[in-house]
Parts: sequence; structure tokens; C-alpha cells
Amino acid sequence: MNLREVSVIGIGTTPYGLLESQSLKSMAIAACGEAIRDAGIEKRQIQAFYLGNYISGVLMGQETLAPLIAVSLGLNREISSTKVEGACSSASIAFRQGYLLIASGLYDIVLVAGVEKMSTAAKEKITASLSTSIDMETEGQTGLTFPGFWAMIARRHMYEFGTTMEQIGMVAVKNHKNGAKNPRARFRNIITLEDVMTSRLICDPLRLYDCCPTSDGASAAVLCASEKAREFTERPIEIAGSAQATGFPSLSDMGQEVMLPATVIAANQAFEMAGLSRNDIDVVELHDCFSVAEIVDSEDLGFFKKGKGGRAVEQGMTQVDGKLPINPSGGLMCKGHPVGASGLGQIYEVVRQLREEHENQVKGAEIGLTHNAGGTGAVCTVHILRRRSDG
Amino acid sequence: MNLREVSVIGIGTTPYGLLESQSLKSMAIAACGEAIRDAGIEKRQIQAFYLGNYISGVLMGQETLAPLIAVSLGLNREISSTKVEGACSSASIAFRQGYLLIASGLYDIVLVAGVEKMSTAAKEKITASLSTSIDMETEGQTGLTFPGFWAMIARRHMYEFGTTMEQIGMVAVKNHKNGAKNPRARFRNIITLEDVMTSRLICDPLRLYDCCPTSDGASAAVLCASEKAREFTERPIEIAGSAQATGFPSLSDMGQEVMLPATVIAANQAFEMAGLSRNDIDVVELHDCFSVAEIVDSEDLGFFKKGKGGRAVEQGMTQVDGKLPINPSGGLMCKGHPVGASGLGQIYEVVRQLREEHENQVKGAEIGLTHNAGGTGAVCTVHILRRRSDG
Repeated sequence: MNLREVSVIGIGTTPYGLLESQSLKSMAIAACGEAIRDAGIEKRQIQAFYLGNYISGVLMGQETLAPLIAVSLGLNREISSTKVEGACSSASIAFRQGYLLIASGLYDIVLVAGVEKMSTAAKEKITASLSTSIDMETEGQTGLTFPGFWAMIARRHMYEFGTTMEQIGMVAVKNHKNGAKNPRARFRNIITLEDVMTSRLICDPLRLYDCCPTSDGASAAVLCASEKAREFTERPIEIAGSAQATGFPSLSDMGQEVMLPATVIAANQAFEMAGLSRNDIDVVELHDCFSVAEIVDSEDLGFFKKGKGGRAVEQGMTQVDGKLPINPSGGLMCKGHPVGASGLGQIYEVVRQLREEHENQVKGAEIGLTHNAGGTGAVCTVHILRRRSDG
Repeated sequence: MNLREVSVIGIGTTPYGLLESQSLKSMAIAACGEAIRDAGIEKRQIQAFYLGNYISGVLMGQETLAPLIAVSLGLNREISSTKVEGACSSASIAFRQGYLLIASGLYDIVLVAGVEKMSTAAKEKITASLSTSIDMETEGQTGLTFPGFWAMIARRHMYEFGTTMEQIGMVAVKNHKNGAKNPRARFRNIITLEDVMTSRLICDPLRLYDCCPTSDGASAAVLCASEKAREFTERPIEIAGSAQATGFPSLSDMGQEVMLPATVIAANQAFEMAGLSRNDIDVVELHDCFSVAEIVDSEDLGFFKKGKGGRAVEQGMTQVDGKLPINPSGGLMCKGHPVGASGLGQIYEVVRQLREEHENQVKGAEIGLTHNAGGTGAVCTVHILRRRSDG
């Protein structure tokens, strides 16, 4: 079928961090309200609501968040409000549902959001709770959690390709440098490679600064059929590619421990759909839940050959002024990772880049890419956004 | 836009009950496998997978079930696998996502499923876990759980309309009579009104037999564009109406405590979409999580005037051979209520009715309706199914 073109016409977000006085509901309402105002639409024009959330049931004792937020926000009760969950990809799945239902012609305007509240949960609960996306009948039973998952991938990547801990640590240094300028980021401090290499060992070989921080936050976007977008905004950002692929829920099934196969599939689908090549991408926000993940993802997305991602970081290619700026927002690592919200947080950052209003603006950015990896890469999403040529 | 017609071409289910030796994965695979075989399709023909699940994160420590099941089932990893959650409506939301994406022309064949595993969780955990769909910032904090929610509705319904506990109890008697013949039902015993009225008090005025049992189970369906359905089956069942509306996440917001407003909205939408009237419906599977819920739902769906549902039960109108057979499967009350699966369990039962192969066959049934109420009615869905006129 011929898909209609779909644009992002409004974005909203809370800062990411320790938002102690805020609840799941208040954060989601703030982000959605900002997106609605940014789009210049009326609430009654929204025809469906999709919400991404990963772990509020386990961490906060609150499920069924979509109608809860829809009602508090004052959306029309005649529309559906639906929660989607795919671990850390939850918000980008919500984004994609909105995209699909507009592209297919069913709706004209859909509100999508993601939210997570982590800071008030007991600290010892969080890492274990996040590991519930690993297959608990098999690998989850071994006690594997995500620091361990990514530590094994780091070791294997170093063994196979000679990637160094210095290269891996440079991801953290770069992302902190970027995050320092981003008012939405949890960490605003510049760090050195020595800081990374001497920080506390979390899961050998990964150290404290190799790990993203759990955070609170919510992000939202208003999507609209491109043919109607100009009614609302002078600067719609088009969704040129949208893909979601299925990966393995355990490391032992993956075959090779240096890549997430679903990222490769989703990237190929998104580029094919957009009719674009890797060279066309001006800015990337990808899933750097651990520093090594940024290197793995940048290879899986096709920007660098497998095994060459570490060197690319070392050469400065992924800096804001490099050939392929990655995570100018500071990434999950520095901006923070409220898991069920992060996918739309990335969309928020890239839309601001393509509007040329970002605090770490990539000069002349016209086309951006976002990438989410849920859990062990069991759900990977890739979206390609483009400033409309008449924009 | 013009929606394409969509049909159910395959159904599968586990029995509902205490399936102690089965896991979330094994149940879902069994139900999906049966639906795929029933449809006569190859797995590789499936273009998307939607899974309903409510509470496996809290009860079983397993989230991100959609890719877990997709991979175990051997689905193509190029397709998306997405979990949706709307409390007890989760599976019917999955069904509706599949419907929307085929109706809009995006896909031709989608697999949808629902699963829940409850029997291995600690008993004291279950009622509290299920109440996580109530707004925990407000009413949930009072300690309200679902037996209390429906007990208050029962009291108010009795006060407003003179509904009696005998009428309410007759729902349980009828549904047990029906369930006794259903090999998929958890309870197969016939009970008397005296059994109900003298059973243990759970939450005044509701007694043990007024409450549905928590259960394990999975159900699935294969949906297909009607224009292609005949390639696979001689007996496609068409989806004539599909609706999902948003209700209140707390009793105190509902205004009147004798109805679920989202059921009313969804029913009106589904009937309008189908171009049918209440009189056209031959068989109903509705959300009888408590006996009084069947009475409330039957009114909210528009089958009986508000306040008249109790009398309709008393007059035998909702028996299998009555004017409007309700829950010939035994309903949630007797068949069991694996919360994230029940919506597709209802679809399974109605499809068997419309194929004229049900153990409690409603004679000549051509059009059936299913209804799910998630949580406090925060997400209500209504689907109308119809045997194709050329079938």
C-alpha cells in the first residue's frame, strides 16, 4: 500500500533526572501538555493516544497507565488510550504505533508519550527489575543483569577486534561533554578519560562512568499527517523511516556476542523505507545504555564496519563537530535513561536538531536518526527524521 | 477512509485453570500454534505480532513478553512483536491493534495473542497486584481492590434499582451451568442459588461464587484481510465492529457508581461501525469478573435498560436458549480469568459459536459480541463478529 507521509508537529519533555517531587502522572502530563502546545493543536483533535512505559508495575505498583494519563490530561474519552511495552524501546514503539496509524490513513493526529519513574524505588530493586526483560526461564535464572550482559559484549568486542577500554571510555567522555550543555540532562559535568578509567568497577570491565543512570522523566510528541501538518506548524519534521524488529531475549541465543541482530534488521528496513544511505544522516541519537553499547550500535546501524566503532570514537568522528555526530544530547549515559521514556527523549532531541534549535546544534542538520534497543536487543527500533524540504 | 474488511481465520487457546506445569511461554506458544494451524497459514506469512498481557512483570518477574514469545514460536524476526497492556482488556487491545493494521491496509495477516500466569504467584500477592490498575495516587492508596470496587457498585445498583442478591447470584448459577459443558472452563460444576447465597462472604455483599477465579491461560487468533481469507479457510468470521474507549481509573471519578461509561461509549461506536442494532446480536461474551458486573455490563452495552439487567437474568433471558444468551462459555466467572488472555478467550468462544461448533451452541448464531472492561473500566473494548454471509 501507499503510506501517507507523517510529521512530528509538536514535542515536549521533562528534564531527565531525579525528579523527586514528580509522579508518573505529573511528568507525563507535563510532557504531553508541552507537546500539545508546541503543536498548536486542541486536545479534542487528538484521535488516539499511545503510551510507552516499561516497569512502572514492578517499580511503582502502577499499571494501566495509558487511560490514567489520558483522563488526567483531559483527552476525549471517545478515543483509545493504549500502553505498549518493549523494555527500553517502549516509547519508540508508542511513536511507531502513532506513525503506522497515521501513515495507513486511519488517523490524522495522534499523541504519543513515554514515561518512567525510577528514583523513588528501592535502589536494590532497580537492576533486578530491569532484568525482567531477559528470558527468566533460561538466562535470567542465572542472575544475569544488564551490566553483566554488556560487560560480556565489551569483553568479546575487545577480544575480536582489539577495541580498547580507552576507546570505550571515550564514549563516556564525549557524552558528558555534550550533556554538559543540555539543560535536560541529568549530568552536566565534564569528565576526563582518567575519571572514567579510575571510576568504581561495576561489572568488569565496565566502570561507573560506563553506565547510564536510572532516572525519572517523560517525553511526548504529536504526530500528524504531513498533508495537514502545515495547518499547525511552519516547521514539521517528517518521519522518513520507521522500523521495529525482533531480537533474542538472551545472550546465548544471539550467536555472536558483538552485535544486536535486531538493530541491523531495523536499520536496513528504515533506510530502505526512507530511500536514504548512511551518508545522508547528519545526527544520531542511539541507545548508549552503556558506553560499549554506543560502539556496538554505531556498527550495527551500518555507520562503521563491525569492529571499527571504537576507532571511530577515538578519531573524534562522533563528536558534535565530527563526521557523524552521535548523541549530542549526552545520550542515555549522561542525559539519563528513564527507560520507558527514552525513545521519545531521543525523538525530542533530534527534532530540536532538525529545527536547528539544539543547545549542541549540529550545523545544518537536515536528517537525523534515532535508535532504541529494548532489553537484550529483543525489540529494536530505528526512526529516520527529516526536515521537510519545503520547510 | 474506507476500512478493509478483516476476518478471524484461526483461533487457539489453552484451557483456563491451574496449569501448574505450564509457563507463560509454553501456554502462549500452545495457543498461537493452534491458531496458526487452525488458520492453515505458514508462520512466515505473519506480518506482525501483538500480545496482550497485564501483570506478568509483577506476578512472574517477566516483562517484554512479546519478542520472547515471538522468538520461541519461530516467527520471522523481521516483523515487529509488540506487547500491549490495558489491565483485563489487554488481549482485546491486541486483537484490535491487529484489526486496525489490517483494516487500514498496512498488513494482510497478523497474529494476536494474550497470556497470563497467576497460579504460581503467592496468593496474597494477586489481589493487590491486580489493583495496580486503580489510580495509586488517589483511590488505590485507600486500599481499594476489585472485590471492593464491585461490591460498592453492587450495593449502589441494589439501592438505585432494587436489584436483589438473588438476581446477582443467578448470574453465577447460569454461568456455572454453562461452564459445566465447556472443556476449556476451570470450573465444571453445577451450583444452586443456595450455594451462591451461602458461600463465604468475600466483600460484602459479594460472596465466593460471585467472584471469578484467577487462572492461567493463553488464547490467540490469526486475523486476515477478508479479501484474502478464502485462500485459507472456508469459514472466516468477519470483524464487523471494533471499539476501544477510555474510562476512569477510580470509582470516585465515575460520577455514578452503577455503570462503566467507557463500555457505553465503546458499544455505541462498535454498533455504529457495524451498522447493526442490539437486536441483531445472537450471542455475547462479556466481562463478568464479578456476578454483578454481568448485570452492569449487559445494561451498559445497551441490551437492557439501566437497572433492568437483574430482572433479565431472573427471567432467563440470558440463558443459552434465552432471547440474548450471555456467556455460554461460562464467562470469566466459571471459565476462569487469566487477565491478560481473557479478551481473546472471549473471541475464541464467539468464533466457535459463529462456526456452530460450540459445546453450548446458540442455535443459528450468526452475529456475536465480546466485551472487555480493563481495571475500573479505564479501558473498555467491544467487538462484533459476524459469520460471513457467503460462509
